[in-house]
Amino acid sequence: MAQKKMILDLDTGVDDALALAYAVADPAVDLIGIISSYGNVLVEKSAENSLNLLDLLGASDVPVFIGHSHSSDTDHFDVMPISQMIHGVNGVGEVEVPASSRKPEAQSGVDFLIEAAHKYNDDLILIPTGPMTNLDAAIAKDPEVADLIGNITFMGGALTVPGNVTPFTEANINQDVLAADRVFKSNAKSTMVGLDVTMRTLLTTKETQQWRELGTEAGRLYADIVDYYIDAYAKLGNPGGCALHDPLAVGVAINPDFVKTIDLNMTVTHDTEASTQNEDGSTSQDFGRTIGDMARLTAPTNMKAAVAVDAAGYLAYFMDLLTGLLKEAK
Amino acid sequence: MAQKKMILDLDTGVDDALALAYAVADPAVDLIGIISSYGNVLVEKSAENSLNLLDLLGASDVPVFIGHSHSSDTDHFDVMPISQMIHGVNGVGEVEVPASSRKPEAQSGVDFLIEAAHKYNDDLILIPTGPMTNLDAAIAKDPEVADLIGNITFMGGALTVPGNVTPFTEANINQDVLAADRVFKSNAKSTMVGLDVTMRTLLTTKETQQWRELGTEAGRLYADIVDYYIDAYAKLGNPGGCALHDPLAVGVAINPDFVKTIDLNMTVTHDTEASTQNEDGSTSQDFGRTIGDMARLTAPTNMKAAVAVDAAGYLAYFMDLLTGLLKEAK
Repeated sequence: MAQKKMILDLDTGVDDALALAYAVADPAVDLIGIISSYGNVLVEKSAENSLNLLDLLGASDVPVFIGHSHSSDTDHFDVMPISQMIHGVNGVGEVEVPASSRKPEAQSGVDFLIEAAHKYNDDLILIPTGPMTNLDAAIAKDPEVADLIGNITFMGGALTVPGNVTPFTEANINQDVLAADRVFKSNAKSTMVGLDVTMRTLLTTKETQQWRELGTEAGRLYADIVDYYIDAYAKLGNPGGCALHDPLAVGVAINPDFVKTIDLNMTVTHDTEASTQNEDGSTSQDFGRTIGDMARLTAPTNMKAAVAVDAAGYLAYFMDLLTGLLKEAK
Repeated sequence: MAQKKMILDLDTGVDDALALAYAVADPAVDLIGIISSYGNVLVEKSAENSLNLLDLLGASDVPVFIGHSHSSDTDHFDVMPISQMIHGVNGVGEVEVPASSRKPEAQSGVDFLIEAAHKYNDDLILIPTGPMTNLDAAIAKDPEVADLIGNITFMGGALTVPGNVTPFTEANINQDVLAADRVFKSNAKSTMVGLDVTMRTLLTTKETQQWRELGTEAGRLYADIVDYYIDAYAKLGNPGGCALHDPLAVGVAINPDFVKTIDLNMTVTHDTEASTQNEDGSTSQDFGRTIGDMARLTAPTNMKAAVAVDAAGYLAYFMDLLTGLLKEAK
């Protein structure tokens, strides 16, 4: 089977660092570029982190492109304190990853995505693990992009479980609610890998210890980065390990059998009158809720939502890939 | 295959009338009794409607038992104006169904359920189509009931779509949020047939016209009853027909293949910061939301939620059953 082309759209981020490693390691895909987004860190820091990690993993041939620095309806973005607490202020658990001598590409992330969509279309897999801002901007600039990309698998949303920003809203979707809603209602063929499945797919220090014991710099640094994240999860009341949010999206894009999906046209609630006012007149704070779209409930759909996961099977595959990569890296 | 025993727990109600007819008609089950609940109408009216409909359908041997008249945390129940608008004040679309000479049984609905659970256990199917009050009360009185009943398939809740009372809350669950939450967290083996699937399973006047043309009294009355309901749906902005809420639960209990389910431990939200009940009884925020229980996300579960439906297949079977029954009835 021919390798698919993969683009990651990352706000790098600890679990983004794992998604990056997974995409580098899996022989089923050719990672042709990373688009930098804002979210866990600012867009420039995200690009810097991606470049550093790619070099660490011996993937210095993968270019990094700068995406939008803020949401589609704001002119500025500040990292949330909770993001800094979970990922560290530098995004990679306050670990010092050796600086790459490389720089981001001159071409914008949005233009890179548009070009790749036309070049590879059905063979292109796009993995947004942060806000939908770049994909939304690409579709706005060139509507054909929505039809062209063969597989969009994003980490974000919460359908059958509560959100992690509010009881209704997940963090990535929350960064740019309008962009996500537009993507959901476009022709884009997308699969949502939300908290429904990622919160069931946990990594513990038992696994990171295996990386540390490899004796490589990459193994040690990845173990340190992820241990910071596991520790943050524990401090937030999740002692069972950290969620493999972003790398699960990469895994599902390549092997859909890791999850069970349902076909569902979804909306992201944001219209206060239509979607957040109750019959009794009170208002509900469900801004940014990913939920079935009643207006399109029985219409054909090209969107899927993951609702169950083979966590053990995924974790075994994830560990095979990453341990192998971290062993061969410097 | 031996017939399973079925108990319906109805707040009769137009779609309850369809559930009743379905259970009478399907040869796969033996309808051993109906427990009367409150909701679409008061509990006494619900019992009266069930008795009248059973007689109309030639099922005068099926006993009707009176259940609780209000929720587990109130001492009174008034029918909501919206229920009266949808089902008619008399619950059966303001249609005059000939009065049965029968009366409800002396035994309480809760005691009947407990007795049947012990007698039939794995062979017993319970279908609550209104509040969970009676099932909750039976489990409170005899905790073994939760383990004994082989199959509980209830109409209620909304997981992947918004609610119909608020954007979070479905009407049956809303009637007794605490009872539903307790049942969800009990050992009861239950399947939720919620708005996720019932709002995709629609009946139109094209179908009711077939009943009217049968030339029987039962065909004419059922057509009139359901046309009232279809008309109410249209007035509420759903011109595509009425939802087959309650009869879908009966169908799924007998033939699970009509739907796709996911295994999920659920909670019904109440008494949280984002979830309050107002002094006037109305609800704010996500009071009564049926959603995955983060505390039990990776724990074993005996609860399923229906998330997709073979609406065409179900509708064909539904029409075969009901048209056959209404043809043979008076």
